[in-house]
Amino acid sequence: MTVYLVGAGPGDPGLLTVRARELIDAADVILYDRLIPPGILDGVAAELVYVGKQGGGPQMPQEEIDRLLVQYGTGGRTVVRLKGGDPFVFGRGGEEALVLREAGIPYEVVPGITAGIAAPAYAGVPVTHRELASGVAFITGHEDPDKAGTAIDWGALARFPGTTSYGIPASRSTSASSPPRPNTNGSPPFRRTTVRPPVPYWTSSRSISSCGICGPPPCLPT
Amino acid sequence: MTVYLVGAGPGDPGLLTVRARELIDAADVILYDRLIPPGILDGVAAELVYVGKQGGGPQMPQEEIDRLLVQYGTGGRTVVRLKGGDPFVFGRGGEEALVLREAGIPYEVVPGITAGIAAPAYAGVPVTHRELASGVAFITGHEDPDKAGTAIDWGALARFPGTTSYGIPASRSTSASSPPRPNTNGSPPFRRTTVRPPVPYWTSSRSISSCGICGPPPCLPT
Repeated sequence: MTVYLVGAGPGDPGLLTVRARELIDAADVILYDRLIPPGILDGVAAELVYVGKQGGGPQMPQEEIDRLLVQYGTGGRTVVRLKGGDPFVFGRGGEEALVLREAGIPYEVVPGITAGIAAPAYAGVPVTHRELASGVAFITGHEDPDKAGTAIDWGALARFPGTTSYGIPASRSTSASSPPRPNTNGSPPFRRTTVRPPVPYWTSSRSISSCGICGPPPCLPT
Repeated sequence: MTVYLVGAGPGDPGLLTVRARELIDAADVILYDRLIPPGILDGVAAELVYVGKQGGGPQMPQEEIDRLLVQYGTGGRTVVRLKGGDPFVFGRGGEEALVLREAGIPYEVVPGITAGIAAPAYAGVPVTHRELASGVAFITGHEDPDKAGTAIDWGALARFPGTTSYGIPASRSTSASSPPRPNTNGSPPFRRTTVRPPVPYWTSSRSISSCGICGPPPCLPT
């Protein structure tokens, strides 16, 4: 049977995809993360297995999640691995896909809406704009602590031609001063705003142009 | 009445969000783009207004789309502006939101799944990876031709610490040699692959690591 690596989106149950909803309703087993939208598992028939992680709190090691994926994936039942956001954007979906591939278990990836785009959008902020931002970059705010040094060239990133957005675990983004400081291109009239997302997973700290779209509410004070 | 700026996702009807589906079904008027998933408007009760653009082909000027948004938005009916992908990722959704804001018309943005993430995922490619890619950048492959010079610092982009993905109109991506050449970090064992998406809108040309997930099928030959 297939294991479905499914993105549940950024927190709003309405941002679940039609395909994700169908797979959740049809699953025999669902291995789910902490940061999935509230209520989406209410009333489902599947066996529910919580495999969530919480920075600084109790959590299941990735190796144990991998082991469970293989165990359930070879059990003859339809398995949904339900992850917050998109499985392939800071979700370790790539690592889990590789575990399944190595175990010879068929899998399918169902993309989800990433908070890196949706959280700014819910605050009224477009991450690209024809005249103001030719691109958007999502950068981890939490590199693997076992990695030898940072992979991030901050000088080059400061010259990125658009929006920069940083993903930070909720446990590390409790104050406005904690997010990494983004590119401002040194150009007034840009101003700095911290955007709070639908779920407390990301803090997207970025330069917001004075293009006029963003304003209170829903924007937060600078 | 509210105008809903709705993302329809990258082409797979299953990647429409639950909220988008509900709004399409409840709309009185739908102004829709060329690159929306096949079949999603079949049988809807709304008045359908095609406002699509096609590079090199017939198209409606953005000013006319803006005018129609204001016209329908002040007509007392529920309006859905349906766009391929995500409205705020290379979709001019920011510009249309600003037009609505300036006209005093309430609007709501409903994020959609962007092809920049989904197209690589459908080819088996995770755009981030804990050890291999600390971020992902989406860059326009088609800057506004009226802009004075490029906004893109290609040297800095070559030092981006992760995946780079370029959005190119289908009319400009008909050959493997046409996409911009991405960052390879100069590091073997990276190899170059052109990823073909669910709809022919994006060509995501990027460095793909040898992490082992990507392989034929569904990957295309390098």
